[in-house]
Amino acid sequence: MSTGFFGDIAKIKYEGPDSDNPLAFRHYNPDEVVLGKPLKEHLRFAVAYWHSLAWEGGDPFGGRTFDRPWYDGGMDKAKLKADVAFELFSLLGAPYYCFHDADVRPEGGNFAESTKNLNEIVDYFAKKQEETGVKLLWGTANLFSHRRFMSGASTNPDPEVFAYSAATIKTCMDATMKLGGENYVLWGGREGYETLLNTDMSREFDQMARMLSMVIEYKHKIGFKGQILVEPKPQEPTKHQYDYDVATVYGFLQKYGLEKEVKLNIEQGHAILAGHTFEHELALARTLGVLGSIDMNRNDYQSGWDTDQFPNNVPEMALAYYQVLLAGGFTSGGTNFDAKLRRQSIDPADLLYGHIGGMDCCARGLKAAARMIEDGALSKPLDERYAGWNGDSAKKMLSGEMTLEDIAAMVEKDDINPEPKSGRQEYLENIINKYV
Amino acid sequence: MSTGFFGDIAKIKYEGPDSDNPLAFRHYNPDEVVLGKPLKEHLRFAVAYWHSLAWEGGDPFGGRTFDRPWYDGGMDKAKLKADVAFELFSLLGAPYYCFHDADVRPEGGNFAESTKNLNEIVDYFAKKQEETGVKLLWGTANLFSHRRFMSGASTNPDPEVFAYSAATIKTCMDATMKLGGENYVLWGGREGYETLLNTDMSREFDQMARMLSMVIEYKHKIGFKGQILVEPKPQEPTKHQYDYDVATVYGFLQKYGLEKEVKLNIEQGHAILAGHTFEHELALARTLGVLGSIDMNRNDYQSGWDTDQFPNNVPEMALAYYQVLLAGGFTSGGTNFDAKLRRQSIDPADLLYGHIGGMDCCARGLKAAARMIEDGALSKPLDERYAGWNGDSAKKMLSGEMTLEDIAAMVEKDDINPEPKSGRQEYLENIINKYV
Amino acid sequence: MSTGFFGDIAKIKYEGPDSDNPLAFRHYNPDEVVLGKPLKEHLRFAVAYWHSLAWEGGDPFGGRTFDRPWYDGGMDKAKLKADVAFELFSLLGAPYYCFHDADVRPEGGNFAESTKNLNEIVDYFAKKQEETGVKLLWGTANLFSHRRFMSGASTNPDPEVFAYSAATIKTCMDATMKLGGENYVLWGGREGYETLLNTDMSREFDQMARMLSMVIEYKHKIGFKGQILVEPKPQEPTKHQYDYDVATVYGFLQKYGLEKEVKLNIEQGHAILAGHTFEHELALARTLGVLGSIDMNRNDYQSGWDTDQFPNNVPEMALAYYQVLLAGGFTSGGTNFDAKLRRQSIDPADLLYGHIGGMDCCARGLKAAARMIEDGALSKPLDERYAGWNGDSAKKMLSGEMTLEDIAAMVEKDDINPEPKSGRQEYLENIINKYV
Amino acid sequence: MSTGFFGDIAKIKYEGPDSDNPLAFRHYNPDEVVLGKPLKEHLRFAVAYWHSLAWEGGDPFGGRTFDRPWYDGGMDKAKLKADVAFELFSLLGAPYYCFHDADVRPEGGNFAESTKNLNEIVDYFAKKQEETGVKLLWGTANLFSHRRFMSGASTNPDPEVFAYSAATIKTCMDATMKLGGENYVLWGGREGYETLLNTDMSREFDQMARMLSMVIEYKHKIGFKGQILVEPKPQEPTKHQYDYDVATVYGFLQKYGLEKEVKLNIEQGHAILAGHTFEHELALARTLGVLGSIDMNRNDYQSGWDTDQFPNNVPEMALAYYQVLLAGGFTSGGTNFDAKLRRQSIDPADLLYGHIGGMDCCARGLKAAARMIEDGALSKPLDERYAGWNGDSAKKMLSGEMTLEDIAAMVEKDDINPEPKSGRQEYLENIINKYV
Repeated sequence: MSTGFFGDIAKIKYEGPDSDNPLAFRHYNPDEVVLGKPLKEHLRFAVAYWHSLAWEGGDPFGGRTFDRPWYDGGMDKAKLKADVAFELFSLLGAPYYCFHDADVRPEGGNFAESTKNLNEIVDYFAKKQEETGVKLLWGTANLFSHRRFMSGASTNPDPEVFAYSAATIKTCMDATMKLGGENYVLWGGREGYETLLNTDMSREFDQMARMLSMVIEYKHKIGFKGQILVEPKPQEPTKHQYDYDVATVYGFLQKYGLEKEVKLNIEQGHAILAGHTFEHELALARTLGVLGSIDMNRNDYQSGWDTDQFPNNVPEMALAYYQVLLAGGFTSGGTNFDAKLRRQSIDPADLLYGHIGGMDCCARGLKAAARMIEDGALSKPLDERYAGWNGDSAKKMLSGEMTLEDIAAMVEKDDINPEPKSGRQEYLENIINKYV
Repeated sequence: MSTGFFGDIAKIKYEGPDSDNPLAFRHYNPDEVVLGKPLKEHLRFAVAYWHSLAWEGGDPFGGRTFDRPWYDGGMDKAKLKADVAFELFSLLGAPYYCFHDADVRPEGGNFAESTKNLNEIVDYFAKKQEETGVKLLWGTANLFSHRRFMSGASTNPDPEVFAYSAATIKTCMDATMKLGGENYVLWGGREGYETLLNTDMSREFDQMARMLSMVIEYKHKIGFKGQILVEPKPQEPTKHQYDYDVATVYGFLQKYGLEKEVKLNIEQGHAILAGHTFEHELALARTLGVLGSIDMNRNDYQSGWDTDQFPNNVPEMALAYYQVLLAGGFTSGGTNFDAKLRRQSIDPADLLYGHIGGMDCCARGLKAAARMIEDGALSKPLDERYAGWNGDSAKKMLSGEMTLEDIAAMVEKDDINPEPKSGRQEYLENIINKYV
Repeated sequence: MSTGFFGDIAKIKYEGPDSDNPLAFRHYNPDEVVLGKPLKEHLRFAVAYWHSLAWEGGDPFGGRTFDRPWYDGGMDKAKLKADVAFELFSLLGAPYYCFHDADVRPEGGNFAESTKNLNEIVDYFAKKQEETGVKLLWGTANLFSHRRFMSGASTNPDPEVFAYSAATIKTCMDATMKLGGENYVLWGGREGYETLLNTDMSREFDQMARMLSMVIEYKHKIGFKGQILVEPKPQEPTKHQYDYDVATVYGFLQKYGLEKEVKLNIEQGHAILAGHTFEHELALARTLGVLGSIDMNRNDYQSGWDTDQFPNNVPEMALAYYQVLLAGGFTSGGTNFDAKLRRQSIDPADLLYGHIGGMDCCARGLKAAARMIEDGALSKPLDERYAGWNGDSAKKMLSGEMTLEDIAAMVEKDDINPEPKSGRQEYLENIINKYV
Repeated sequence: MSTGFFGDIAKIKYEGPDSDNPLAFRHYNPDEVVLGKPLKEHLRFAVAYWHSLAWEGGDPFGGRTFDRPWYDGGMDKAKLKADVAFELFSLLGAPYYCFHDADVRPEGGNFAESTKNLNEIVDYFAKKQEETGVKLLWGTANLFSHRRFMSGASTNPDPEVFAYSAATIKTCMDATMKLGGENYVLWGGREGYETLLNTDMSREFDQMARMLSMVIEYKHKIGFKGQILVEPKPQEPTKHQYDYDVATVYGFLQKYGLEKEVKLNIEQGHAILAGHTFEHELALARTLGVLGSIDMNRNDYQSGWDTDQFPNNVPEMALAYYQVLLAGGFTSGGTNFDAKLRRQSIDPADLLYGHIGGMDCCARGLKAAARMIEDGALSKPLDERYAGWNGDSAKKMLSGEMTLEDIAAMVEKDDINPEPKSGRQEYLENIINKYV
């Protein structure tokens, strides 16, 4: 039974590139097979509960612009929100969703009450999942919105906040397990600092590592088969966030011996804020073996804050999915739209336009990337470029059979005087533009 | 015997804060004792050969503005340059200098010739060091200016360039050893990429790690007692440099098991380009135990390239030296002025003004930091802020004696509901302003 | 009669640079005479009602952290807020304050009700002003927080919003006039766009200009003697704000013939976000004759959003006040602290620490700038640098007496081949460091 | 007679979107008619002499990587360079080129000699133009590379440099006139400052304005029919450039009464460095009536310096050409590739790949923009959004028939309480993605 929130909008269908219907997919045909797998299994789309259902359209200079019938209420409103949420997922044909505890349940007066509320909603979600076939890509705990977390969650100077955070994570892991979630995510929005003047970084690193270790221990204890994912972001809301970018998180994981247990959830917008391209972060995670899942969105290139817009630039998205495909594609991960409407997009239909456009762009990007892989469009020139390393003395240099002295002697003896070769960047960029 | 380059300028003396003499120190009194050590031993100033002697005042839109008598020549000019260099060090009373091979010797037609040139200059430097008492803080190899390095040195797709680079590093390590250098630095200016389209990051990481391993092996082989230092920078000249920032380099070192052998040379300007404050990079390196040395300069906050200006903001410098002092001060490291004159500052005297101002600001910063440490100005509020972690259950949470479930049970049983406490940032900022 | 909000904190006094009292001024001695005028008349400090009284400590990732007794209420709470506000002004000895309508009165159900609420509070303020001697530096209208303004105020595609905005401005101008405000400010927080796709820039410029013209007309009609000020900001909340920076606003004013009637209110943080230094914006406004007033704060250099922190870097502030003094100092303008506490600074005392630190830094900056002016520290070298323009042919080139052809002929005839002269930047930077 | 520089590469032809030939156009069919005009007349492509012929592949950390037979020589080499240049233009079928004096002639020992060299080359160019049919889009003077310009050209503190600059501009205007150039461009690369400490902005504005006025006077005197264009850039090489962005230049032109005589040459990379999108700068120039010509390239979004890359992102380029078409298309202006190869792209063929890719992307962008215009894809929703302004009272508010008081009375009387309407950004973004 429909809530009526979306009026008479029916399930979004694929109508092909020439369709003029703004409520149809032009490129995302879920069952289209690419590289041996249907698009829906490649892309594994998820809708983010927080942006699409919980966010109210506020910004630092203004309050709520949306007007949703589920605002300002208790458990009844939370259930109405859930009803609309699963309608949205179903209209879009999105196979997955993601949520934080605070997105879905009313805040209680204390931990026990909040937990009780969460559990009630989890039961409700379980039923909705069964009815709709929609599944949980990942769950997570919101340890940044309530004022108790203002100085951090696991990295708080107050151990009581650490305890409260740990307890909250446990309930969210339980909820994720119960709902069959395929991953559990940690985003440390306030794990960082506003000023070094009041911060003991060394202590806080140890606290953060202990929390992550407990999460891994608990995962194994309860038999949760999903992947633990950490999500990097450089800053905002903090001045500096400890999980700055892929390289930083990887270094942290290694320092505490956790790099085998944890993978990364990588977001376009966070990459941009850290001074990287999205494909850089994906390529690096692939190289380091920690690419887990993606938060798909886009950050405005001229704005210095987290704009979380729906993605719309297909050439950039093709390069991102190229990295995902090179990594072997998603296993437990997927494409979560961590994207919110602009706060002026106040109509219910805007929720659909945002996701339809995003899903279409992802499909175009992935299909272009797949064709590039099929054609060896980039891999052939790449192999050629590094072909010198297949030679014997080159291999010896790399394997450790030669020392600095050996090599210096060789250079002098053979009078090695290398001539540079073209990097052919423009040629390769033109190749990309054949596919997008 | 003077070259006459600096005219009749005499050795720069300390004249105290009220001096109006632009060719005197107002704050840097080398023998002033602070925290039990003279300033000169705290600060360990070095002059950078490249910026002050070799750079010609060019920028991407214009050529040489300086007019130095040692430009455009062979070995004779290189020796004249050395004469002026040691005059500069002596006028300033700088105890150290730093250099790349390419700064000091004419480029030869091939490796053997360049090495011969380098060795001749090294002998000349050895004599100058003896005459003046000036010492070598660190040596390094320039593996980025010559066109052969355009696509990287150790990370080049062409193994011949790897070989040439290895051979060059060997000669530079030999030179550093011979001159009693206290550190050897690697800055991978072209170890990175212009475009991911033609880059195999995984291979290149292995290449870079192999080179660094060979450096460490060679250091031990020849009995070089100095510290191996890697210098992070996020980009420029490359679009992305693999040694992005402190966190990235640390992760890389761990991945290849090199974190015990290598420390970092941290530069203000590079920190800024990577989106960090200088004190962040220093604090992080301190926390990770890899703070080795600093390249002191400043980057313009509005410019997106490496401006390498002389530092002039004392409040910021006080925070930087505060981190250095907390780390126990420099051992083999020091304060190298990786700073160049503005290209309009074409007079010989400008070389002195730049360094005098920088040295004075460093001295003011370090003295302020030392007083903050003596007074416990920041450490007392810090201990207070984290005092909760001295409690028994807090310790248990951190030590691993409690699991996520134990903590959740405790939160529920004790109805833990933490109240936030003020972070007092403005209060602490006011304290800093008492010292600077 | 005290509200008790600030406990037993007494009026903040000047105790001199050596004071250890965190609730005393160390540098701001209101009556200290500099360049013939007491500091308080130079600096003309104002407290911003919005940040210090109305802001609740929220950010895009978290809600209210402050806990003030005047939140969540109607007119009674608004009056309690006013009581605390004037206590704050008085404790600080701040001679001025500034406000938006929405900071001070409860929002009504429609325009008439909001106006009624405003007028009631204005009467209350009038009494408080009389009791305390505190005056109004400027008033303004908040045309950005309510959802009706989400797509702009004067630049809204809906003329009803234009009308509502005009009506609101009228009431705020009336209020400012009644309270003896010395300026009226327009900050067009939503006058800009989120996307060019739905924006008609040409129409919106005309709308914005018409509104500004009506403001000027109304000012003259009611005999308001204060200055109309426009406040530039490049973006946030919008992707692009039409009043981007000083140069942009000046161009806009000229286009519509308003440059004689309007001056600018320039903010440090907005300058930084626009890619400029604060002193650049001030110097430019001075050059263009439109420097009106300043919003003193600081923006974090690594954060890309409006951080509105209390200022704390004295060397930078000295350069800012140097420009103010060169412009002849403030007339109707002043130093408004458009600065908010960090959201972790939740104690009432933090409101005082923030302002005390800011006022002390301003005083140090201004005193340093004044000494630089007295000594001609920068003006003498400047005159020297441009001295060539006092020559006859130089004057002719500038006056229009020579054409391009005349000059070319002269260059050829006299074989003019200019030699560059040192810009002496480091020398000048060292001079500054003598004063700060 | 061919120089042989490009080997056996023949004239680049249009082969359609499916071509696998990297030396063919896939989208740029010069004679394809769009909106009633062939593509070549819409796009008016020009090759930039400086990047493609004169630049040597250096960057701030490394020297020349290219190896061109015309380097390091006198007039003979300059003519060889010209021969290759016109071969390049012809191979590409580019109808136009652009140059600075310093790109094309050897620097002489003084002004007279440099002028003589220029004139000799201009005669040579005249013949090449006649032979090939290639025309001059614009000429300009390089007043930034030689050390005499290190402190500015027209804004130099030394009037002799002003004179030398004026004389140089005269010769370049003469050359442009002689070669039938359709525009004359001024880019003030060093018209700005490194530090405000040594800068008198007010004087320098007057100097810059006087120079521009003389240019206009001289244009009229010699009967040059082309357009005078100023090119904005925010910084680099200077810390701050006076011609910061479109808005700034427009304000400057108005201040000196020159806004009717001058239009703007707008560059993507400069827009990005100024914190704007390219389409913003174009839309603003269109709104202000000063859109003259474009410098097509792209700036890396993560690099803070002028990367001048060949453009490759079609969705972004479609939005740029949409603004050009809305402005009525180019008259004397055109699409100049102010783009340089990456310094690793050292092969002659790379010069062709760069331009082919750029021209193809421009063609795709323009064709998409043209279809959007034909369909009213954006203009219809735009008209709808502002339709309220067609109402009577709306018109009165804008025309000046109503005052602030009148409007306030109306709001109160009619109880105007506007409800926000969706801005539909995501819907519009999806529309764009139908066209690109």
